[in-house]
Amino acid sequence: MDFQQVIMRLNEFWAEHGCLLWQPYNVQVGAGTMNPATALRVLGPEPWNVAYVEPSVRPDDGRYGDNPNRWQQFYQYQVILKPDPGNPQELFLDSLRVLGIDTSAHDVRFVEDNWESPALGDWGLGWEVWLDGQEITQFTYFQQAGGLELDPVSVEITYGLERIAMVLQGVHGIPDIRWEGDVTYGDVHLRGEIEHCTYNFEVADVDNLRGMYDLCEAEASHALERGLVLPAHDYVLKCSHIFNVLDARGAVGVTERARYFARMRKLAREIAELYVKQREELGFPLRAKFSVATPKVEPVPLHYGVPLPSPSQPDGRDAFDLLLEIGSEELPVGDVDRALVQLRERMPEGLAEARLAYEDLRVVGTPRRLVAYVRGVAARQRELERVIKGPPSRVAYDEAGNPTRAAVGFARSHGVGLSQLITRSIDGKDYVVAVARDEGRDASVVLAEMLPRVLGALHFPLSMRWNASGASYSRPLRWLVALLDDVVLPLEYAGVRSGRASRGIRTLNAPELPIGQASDYFGIMEGAGIMLDTADREASILRQAQVLAAEVKGEVPEDAELLRELANLVEYPLPIRGSFEDEYLRLPEEVLLAVMRKHQRYLPVVRAGKLLPYFVAVGNGQSLDVDAVRRGNEEVLRARYADAAYFYREDTERPLEAYTPRLATLTFQEQLGSVLDKVKRLERLVSGLCQVLDLSPDQTVAALRAASLCKSDLVTKLVVELTSLQGQMGGHYAELAGESAEVAQAIAEHYLPRFMGDRLPEGMAGVVVGLADRIDTLVGLFAVGIRPSGAADPWGLRRAALGTIQLLVGKGVSLAVPRALSMAGEVLPVEVGEELLGEVFEFIKRRYRRWLLDSGLRYDMVDAVLAERGHDPALASHTLEAFAPWLEKSFWDGMLDSYARCVRITRDLETVHVVDESRFVEPISQDLYEIYGFVARRVHAHPTIDTLFRGILELKPFVTEFFDRVLVMSEDTELRQNRLGLLQAIGDLPKGIADLTVMEGF
Amino acid sequence: MDFQQVIMRLNEFWAEHGCLLWQPYNVQVGAGTMNPATALRVLGPEPWNVAYVEPSVRPDDGRYGDNPNRWQQFYQYQVILKPDPGNPQELFLDSLRVLGIDTSAHDVRFVEDNWESPALGDWGLGWEVWLDGQEITQFTYFQQAGGLELDPVSVEITYGLERIAMVLQGVHGIPDIRWEGDVTYGDVHLRGEIEHCTYNFEVADVDNLRGMYDLCEAEASHALERGLVLPAHDYVLKCSHIFNVLDARGAVGVTERARYFARMRKLAREIAELYVKQREELGFPLRAKFSVATPKVEPVPLHYGVPLPSPSQPDGRDAFDLLLEIGSEELPVGDVDRALVQLRERMPEGLAEARLAYEDLRVVGTPRRLVAYVRGVAARQRELERVIKGPPSRVAYDEAGNPTRAAVGFARSHGVGLSQLITRSIDGKDYVVAVARDEGRDASVVLAEMLPRVLGALHFPLSMRWNASGASYSRPLRWLVALLDDVVLPLEYAGVRSGRASRGIRTLNAPELPIGQASDYFGIMEGAGIMLDTADREASILRQAQVLAAEVKGEVPEDAELLRELANLVEYPLPIRGSFEDEYLRLPEEVLLAVMRKHQRYLPVVRAGKLLPYFVAVGNGQSLDVDAVRRGNEEVLRARYADAAYFYREDTERPLEAYTPRLATLTFQEQLGSVLDKVKRLERLVSGLCQVLDLSPDQTVAALRAASLCKSDLVTKLVVELTSLQGQMGGHYAELAGESAEVAQAIAEHYLPRFMGDRLPEGMAGVVVGLADRIDTLVGLFAVGIRPSGAADPWGLRRAALGTIQLLVGKGVSLAVPRALSMAGEVLPVEVGEELLGEVFEFIKRRYRRWLLDSGLRYDMVDAVLAERGHDPALASHTLEAFAPWLEKSFWDGMLDSYARCVRITRDLETVHVVDESRFVEPISQDLYEIYGFVARRVHAHPTIDTLFRGILELKPFVTEFFDRVLVMSEDTELRQNRLGLLQAIGDLPKGIADLTVMEGF
Repeated sequence: MDFQQVIMRLNEFWAEHGCLLWQPYNVQVGAGTMNPATALRVLGPEPWNVAYVEPSVRPDDGRYGDNPNRWQQFYQYQVILKPDPGNPQELFLDSLRVLGIDTSAHDVRFVEDNWESPALGDWGLGWEVWLDGQEITQFTYFQQAGGLELDPVSVEITYGLERIAMVLQGVHGIPDIRWEGDVTYGDVHLRGEIEHCTYNFEVADVDNLRGMYDLCEAEASHALERGLVLPAHDYVLKCSHIFNVLDARGAVGVTERARYFARMRKLAREIAELYVKQREELGFPLRAKFSVATPKVEPVPLHYGVPLPSPSQPDGRDAFDLLLEIGSEELPVGDVDRALVQLRERMPEGLAEARLAYEDLRVVGTPRRLVAYVRGVAARQRELERVIKGPPSRVAYDEAGNPTRAAVGFARSHGVGLSQLITRSIDGKDYVVAVARDEGRDASVVLAEMLPRVLGALHFPLSMRWNASGASYSRPLRWLVALLDDVVLPLEYAGVRSGRASRGIRTLNAPELPIGQASDYFGIMEGAGIMLDTADREASILRQAQVLAAEVKGEVPEDAELLRELANLVEYPLPIRGSFEDEYLRLPEEVLLAVMRKHQRYLPVVRAGKLLPYFVAVGNGQSLDVDAVRRGNEEVLRARYADAAYFYREDTERPLEAYTPRLATLTFQEQLGSVLDKVKRLERLVSGLCQVLDLSPDQTVAALRAASLCKSDLVTKLVVELTSLQGQMGGHYAELAGESAEVAQAIAEHYLPRFMGDRLPEGMAGVVVGLADRIDTLVGLFAVGIRPSGAADPWGLRRAALGTIQLLVGKGVSLAVPRALSMAGEVLPVEVGEELLGEVFEFIKRRYRRWLLDSGLRYDMVDAVLAERGHDPALASHTLEAFAPWLEKSFWDGMLDSYARCVRITRDLETVHVVDESRFVEPISQDLYEIYGFVARRVHAHPTIDTLFRGILELKPFVTEFFDRVLVMSEDTELRQNRLGLLQAIGDLPKGIADLTVMEGF
Repeated sequence: MDFQQVIMRLNEFWAEHGCLLWQPYNVQVGAGTMNPATALRVLGPEPWNVAYVEPSVRPDDGRYGDNPNRWQQFYQYQVILKPDPGNPQELFLDSLRVLGIDTSAHDVRFVEDNWESPALGDWGLGWEVWLDGQEITQFTYFQQAGGLELDPVSVEITYGLERIAMVLQGVHGIPDIRWEGDVTYGDVHLRGEIEHCTYNFEVADVDNLRGMYDLCEAEASHALERGLVLPAHDYVLKCSHIFNVLDARGAVGVTERARYFARMRKLAREIAELYVKQREELGFPLRAKFSVATPKVEPVPLHYGVPLPSPSQPDGRDAFDLLLEIGSEELPVGDVDRALVQLRERMPEGLAEARLAYEDLRVVGTPRRLVAYVRGVAARQRELERVIKGPPSRVAYDEAGNPTRAAVGFARSHGVGLSQLITRSIDGKDYVVAVARDEGRDASVVLAEMLPRVLGALHFPLSMRWNASGASYSRPLRWLVALLDDVVLPLEYAGVRSGRASRGIRTLNAPELPIGQASDYFGIMEGAGIMLDTADREASILRQAQVLAAEVKGEVPEDAELLRELANLVEYPLPIRGSFEDEYLRLPEEVLLAVMRKHQRYLPVVRAGKLLPYFVAVGNGQSLDVDAVRRGNEEVLRARYADAAYFYREDTERPLEAYTPRLATLTFQEQLGSVLDKVKRLERLVSGLCQVLDLSPDQTVAALRAASLCKSDLVTKLVVELTSLQGQMGGHYAELAGESAEVAQAIAEHYLPRFMGDRLPEGMAGVVVGLADRIDTLVGLFAVGIRPSGAADPWGLRRAALGTIQLLVGKGVSLAVPRALSMAGEVLPVEVGEELLGEVFEFIKRRYRRWLLDSGLRYDMVDAVLAERGHDPALASHTLEAFAPWLEKSFWDGMLDSYARCVRITRDLETVHVVDESRFVEPISQDLYEIYGFVARRVHAHPTIDTLFRGILELKPFVTEFFDRVLVMSEDTELRQNRLGLLQAIGDLPKGIADLTVMEGF
């Protein structure tokens, strides 16, 4: 099928299904979503079904036409269905069949992919649709656009036309696609592709583009002021494209990006609001229009507001099996697990609350169905007796034993006869009580009430709405099977009613599977080629993958996380081994693995720890055409590796340090300058830190060189593309460029730790550079007024603070944080005052405290130590380690109290009294002072918790005796002051170690 | 048929016919032509067949959605066929039928419309295609793009989708078009249309847009420097769109427009050249591709280079009839006439040269065929005897009368026997001559040679190429019928071979009409509903139109030019009366007529000199569905009038003077400021001229007011739309605004005369304002360095100069042009020196001289008068009128000579000698001096030609006698000087009247 025929067929298909056929937009856009036919029409209540081609331009994706399936310009085919017709996935699959794709032989998959456009304030939940591993479509339920919540939700289907054409034509690269007759896509577009890449990456004048951006933005504002939606929208699109070119040109730093996004988002939101207002003023004229043609696959009818039939249940049985199958569109892998965990908790809770006995519960699931099977549910609720306390017996009955008016009133008010009142002894006193007996209802009635509640209580990190019921769930819920043995239990959730029709696996076109009775279910599912239990699927994948790996004398390394993900992506796993060209093995292994695992979810195949040119992909369903699926997946990986190889080749053409100057084009933060400026600061800061930390000359040399190079990989192409490889690639490139092993390692490690529990740098050079990087970020950003607020911390300041702590504590590096902050402040290009440094320090300390508390330490101990040693987290940490065991001691309270007595009496004094040993009159005072002297010397010599607490323990009997015998507050001033002075001295013993006054029990 | 179905059907149609289906461009364009799929792909030798939709944006055409068929954005459907498949018109008509248009009932017409994009350096020849009067398609043979000549030529078909959909759906306005189901075009686009209009006309910030333009231009240049075609092209498109918005905003003056165009054209040309170079480097890869599918209507096969068969002719006849029919695509109306005139000259010439006798020749034609019918052509050429002069007889023969070697050589060299040499007397001397006898060839052979020459000699103001033959003609030549009685005469021209198949009228789908023998031709044509003779068609139109007009008690005013045009637009005229709404009669009649005549070529219907709400359109062919055609034409006129009414309403909302300030946004010329600046200058200049010309106070007041308002209509919408109404509308609006009749008239008239032979202003106010306007333009533009060069005079400086002259001469206004120029110079914002003023004056004088010479005056007289009176053209003109009769006199030469004698002898003297009457010694000297005195006093009192020449005549006998008797060059110095002084005085007599020394015969 020619490329143009693909479009014609899609046009016919969607026109037949009631879509208005639209045209590509005449402003450069990154995606069909930005076309007003989507961006605006999804807003507001009016229906809208539309389909169109969109040439989409993403300068950053340009590869000069070198990559087989990634070009900076490509064609999307965009479909919007508003509202959700109830069966958009089926419609979509029909459209693939119209294109000639056999969906039972090819592996068509809905893989979680949520979509967000921070620049325009849009987001939605959905999937990328894979065809044999190749992403061919983006399928999204649009939740928000232009910052406005959408009601109704729109279904957005975005086909990647080139990739579909490549599959249909069996060609290996975009240029080979036959467009029409002999004419190829390459004939038509290759030269332009190369030119646009050259322009975007090499030629575009940054100042000119910035100028254009500003002018377009100004015009958008003008248009908005006059209430003109479309002209404003056009200009925002222009801004967006200009921004994309600037970005591809490498001229947009992190902050600047955020600022550009904020500017665009503001306009987009104003436009969205204005549009909705405008439509409202027009009376939402499309409301009565768009009668969608009946699709080939009927959606399950929705029944908002129509009463459900009354539940009934099988007659004459004491117990029966309950089957609940919740059918939905493909759940994200994480949500499958989450839902199963919740069902395993909620079902027993619910059954217990419902007083329904049962034999056992089995909860299993796949991406398309969650199943709770309850065996032996009692046919009725357990009987319940409820005792209601009435008046005391002596009040309720007169002396003749006849009920008084009080008894009569009580009985009446609880609806029981007087004869049913009985007397019970409660707390040693007799009362009249009424016993109400709840005999329980039919299980069917109770379950019909309970199960929707269980459903409604399932929650997910990201939930979505999709239809007018307003219900939310991980992905649209499409069918419910609820059976009590052979009787349908009437339920309704999200507008969907329960029945007995389950659905088969997608690969077999999801036929309806009627479930005669609950107990048939598992057999039917197995017969339909569905493996219901995640654990079974995991085991099956692993077993088969190892066999496939063994065939090429390799093995599949353990990777529980990936295995679970794979198991939750399918209903029936079909592992398939594919291979790739040996030449790619020349790429760094981390790159190969990152691509395989992250992008494609392939299991790697290794031999003796080294990668082999194979992978194992996992298909969905038994009916697949293994060869076709393998070919498809190989194509995808080839393209991905070609991309990586292209970047790697480009990157390694020059030594790492050659990239450093280009850091000047990456803005770190507007006021703080470029990333290159930051690197210059890091060099000075690292130099200072090396001195302070007393690093060896070798370490210092390595740290300084690493500081110069640590960010250079940010402008290499591979890192621009796969940000997760930052540092790693820097280290690799440094090694290739002949830098020392220490330097390379430091570059690779300076981002560590990236998250809680991550590993730490091994070498000190990496530690120092990592510290300098974070401290510079913290002080710098605070200095220009950036703070985390609420949950929002776009700059990762909390992570930077915690990383600093983790480094210092984890590597046991003793460092006075305030001093380091002050050093950072000195090299910053902005004013950094004492107050600000204090604020940053407090911020770091708070993160540290939170971390300590989260690790289970007692808050008072933490506060005590931080008060005195918070400036030096490593020291504080050691101190806390030493402190903790003391709290467990039986004598802790007494010891603390003994110390406390000394402090309490002196706490409010404003003067520090100097002790004059000669003035002590009582021997105990002299003794105490003498012991104090020993202790104090020891503590000052070794200011550790142990020395301190041992000292306080040593002092304790003397302190006790002192207070027993001596009246501290003597009327003789000198005497009094000398005694107070002694106590003050004892009170000061913990100074610099811990502030014991904050301890509980003080 | 839904709007989207129209597109789908066209896609199917053109895909079936081998077109690549393309997408709209993602940059705003004014037309599909600008899409690189046209703009670039038409360049170079590679084939290219493509079809696509193009949303086209023309800000200027915006009417806030008010006009039924004119919006600023609309959808084109663009088809490019490269090379010409030979039958593109038939393909196009097939595509209309696919859309369900019955081309035999509807009036589909190809009306000359040549296309040019000055901004991009493109042009082509072709037609607008009318469907019942509505322009639905632009059909062009692209001759040049990006400034480069195209080879091969591309056929460009641009459908107007909305207009087609309106016809198909029978709806009356764009918003009512059904797009899909219930959803209308208005639902989809109306709001956006209004918004874009508001933005373009009211909101767009001029400075911002200029800024964007400059930035885009700079980026285009950057891209070009790096050899990047498409990025550069994109930016040029952006420039073009920005320019269009600026233009709609009313911010582009005449000069600025020219400057913008020049900038864009320069880029476009560089891009075009670069593109061709690039394709060449790639080896023109599409050359082997694009096998066009066989169309349903086969083109006439072309036979480049295959030899023609030998001509033969009917046996055994002395004479026969020759039919030549040249069939082509629709010729422009003017070209029909031109071709007929040429054929009527060339055929007899050709036949005479060919020595073919014939009885008579009839030349007739229609837009699709030119016919030459020669009755009674002789079967053979007339015999010819050719006499060749040889050597003199005495050389050729010896004394014995035997031929010498000279005779033998001569005979041999001319291929005659010695016996054939004869002696003839030539110029009184005997020569030997050879007589060669040409017995003549068959007429068929001679005609087969001659007719292609006749064809090739036809020439047109604009000719085109269309196929690989490289031949040029007014429009593509598609068939040739050439018959000698019943025998086909083999001819070939432009790759087309002659045959006997003519074609019928388009309305009947142009069936093949075989012509059995020549004499059947006229009968067959009549039978096929074709009226071959223009005069017949004219008469038929007039007769029927008058009948139709009479039915509504009106008549059709005489308009020979329009009638001829109408007659040459059809092969069979079918006048149809339509009507329009009475309300439009409220518009000024000149507007109604301008629209009817110019845009639609309708005959107006009047009663007692006043327009009635009717018109007569002329359809093509008898088979038309009169009602359908009428409806269509009425729709068109309604839309046109709605447009005019909209403008008129808008324009008259404010008085004319309210528009004046907006003239500040119209740049007149960059250095000379805005049109408002020009108006301010005109006020001052008019004030000065009124004084100099001694106008009455009333005239002065009117002239000054008119000067203030004369340009204000340039910013009214009607004039922006119909520039030809400038002045006229100004006058009309002035009247409405309550200005005096004189002022209104002066505004209306100040552009007069617009061309040679145009009428002049009636009032003096108009004259003065017109003078001031032209003089300001001339001096101003010269001052900033603008001059006409070669044929190019984009500023109309020659017209301005000539207009000045026509005003002064025609109105008999005596004015010293240099003084007026100097006054203009004083108010200009740029430096104007004497030298420049001199240059301008010389420029004007040259134009004047050329005009005078063209009017048939003797150059020497013109030069004589201009030398002395060129500064005052009115005076000069009177002078020349008086001068001319003198040249006819028998005594002229003698009189001139007499004067010349006085001058010749004194001409080289450097001193002017004062005459001392007392020193004359001879009486004749005294007499001469005395007569001179009389004459001189008369001439000085009345410095006219007549006084002068009468004086010279009077002096003549005395001058003669003086020279006879007196030796001027006496040795006596004083005597000599006195005599010379007298002659000098006589020589000076013509000073200030004419310089007689330049006369022939002097």
